[in-house]
Amino acid sequence: MSSVAFVGIGNMGAALAETLLKTSSHKVTIWNRTADRPQVKAVIEAGATFESNIEAAINSDVVIICVLDYDTIYRALEPIQASTSALSEKVIINLTNGTPRQAREMQQWIKARGAAFYFDGAVMVPPQLVGTEHSFILYSGENQEVFTQKVADVVKTLGSSQYTGEDVNSAATDDLAALSTMYGMFAGFFAGLGLVRKQVGTNGKVSPSVSKVVVPVMTAMVPYLSSIAETIDGNDWNNNLGNPLGMQVAGVRNILQACKEESVNGASLEAFVKTMQRTVDAKGGDVGVPAVALYHDE
Amino acid sequence: MSSVAFVGIGNMGAALAETLLKTSSHKVTIWNRTADRPQVKAVIEAGATFESNIEAAINSDVVIICVLDYDTIYRALEPIQASTSALSEKVIINLTNGTPRQAREMQQWIKARGAAFYFDGAVMVPPQLVGTEHSFILYSGENQEVFTQKVADVVKTLGSSQYTGEDVNSAATDDLAALSTMYGMFAGFFAGLGLVRKQVGTNGKVSPSVSKVVVPVMTAMVPYLSSIAETIDGNDWNNNLGNPLGMQVAGVRNILQACKEESVNGASLEAFVKTMQRTVDAKGGDVGVPAVALYHDE
Repeated sequence: MSSVAFVGIGNMGAALAETLLKTSSHKVTIWNRTADRPQVKAVIEAGATFESNIEAAINSDVVIICVLDYDTIYRALEPIQASTSALSEKVIINLTNGTPRQAREMQQWIKARGAAFYFDGAVMVPPQLVGTEHSFILYSGENQEVFTQKVADVVKTLGSSQYTGEDVNSAATDDLAALSTMYGMFAGFFAGLGLVRKQVGTNGKVSPSVSKVVVPVMTAMVPYLSSIAETIDGNDWNNNLGNPLGMQVAGVRNILQACKEESVNGASLEAFVKTMQRTVDAKGGDVGVPAVALYHDE
Repeated sequence: MSSVAFVGIGNMGAALAETLLKTSSHKVTIWNRTADRPQVKAVIEAGATFESNIEAAINSDVVIICVLDYDTIYRALEPIQASTSALSEKVIINLTNGTPRQAREMQQWIKARGAAFYFDGAVMVPPQLVGTEHSFILYSGENQEVFTQKVADVVKTLGSSQYTGEDVNSAATDDLAALSTMYGMFAGFFAGLGLVRKQVGTNGKVSPSVSKVVVPVMTAMVPYLSSIAETIDGNDWNNNLGNPLGMQVAGVRNILQACKEESVNGASLEAFVKTMQRTVDAKGGDVGVPAVALYHDE
């Protein structure tokens, strides 16, 4: 049994704390800037101790931070700003969504206040799935052995733990890579939906096109992302996986032409076709899609 | 048994013609602008008759057109430009990739030359998958009954047939909607890969992040596209499916911030976040992602 403190009881922090209370015998202390919110009350009812003083709250073996953003973390920890020992012997797990740079900087800040171990992570599911078989959380920092000894057992009921590496920013990077892919898909999807909406008219339904065509095609395409990654790792730039980039540029221009003809916003694909074209200009039209990676960095 | 003509023997036309020759007893005639290409020779060896005269070639019950683009179709059919009867009693199936407008215009052009029935379609798999269990082809135009009687039986071995509707442009629209979603996913994926490449360094591998994080997240997210479509069809704009758009805008801005910090091109997501923000400005931050559809048309 460990003592575990949660800093931040928003929707996600509450889901994490409640799950831990229901599935373990850890002593749970929670801190939140305001006590007067339904999530805080629910977690107290589930068995947590509310502590309004942050220094008292974090006097636990493990401190799990999950707040809105990094500025909120620094504000919450303001009372220990001047201390070099407030976090001595503690394991800090920061699950706040942020950038790789923010993860690196937070590691330094936390370590400078004496923490034994700092892990930066990302919860990859919405709050309602925390603790279910679908739950899936990334952790990075320190090393695999310390992760296994100090973290894995404490967090095991929150979701399946994936240790992404010693680089403290690797969990944030992998999280953002997945989200970037998802929002890219959404961007292309809404352009496609725009075309469908124009075609079916105001009383028509878009669901049949999505469930019968878009979803099956996308289901088939997702595993292809792994092939692209392997091709990149092999520097195998001439492997076009059967689809030369030159032809694919023409395909995307065709989509953009349709968007123009039907007055649908295709701006997100316009940005991408520029990078595709830059790749074709530099490497020729026979290279594969993976070569785009070479020209996607600014 | 029908007589079937193929106009265009590129990679896709060859795959379609060869499959039909191997899996049916139809009499197959092929036309291609140049006879001297390996694909043409392969299809002749598989049993097709090559016909260099387009008027003689299309003297078949069913004519399947599959060329590079619509301009190529009009050039190929130039000899029947002045005729109002060259296509009398024929069933024309056009599988050339194009826009909804091009499909509508081609239907008019073909009907004006006397064709009994015109279907516009899209092959949803690469040539190497034609004829396999994964093959999947869309068709639109005329009506379900005519499709069943005149087309379904002829093309059944090419792939599973999906009749998308009487609107002749619905197959092209559904095709472009799926491709737009796919290229959007690629656009976001390459931005995400850029972040991973910066994190792992020049000798590091991107495959672990993609196979262990990006692909599992995307596999979970693809079915969510059907939920978005149903929410749109229900005009259920306040249904945020547990993820208010205001928070999601912040999430995308976080990705863009990381792209900026790591010098990775995030232009495709910048275009999308503008539409997300426009939606939040108009409807408030509590609406769901589906509401973006309302502000995605130009």
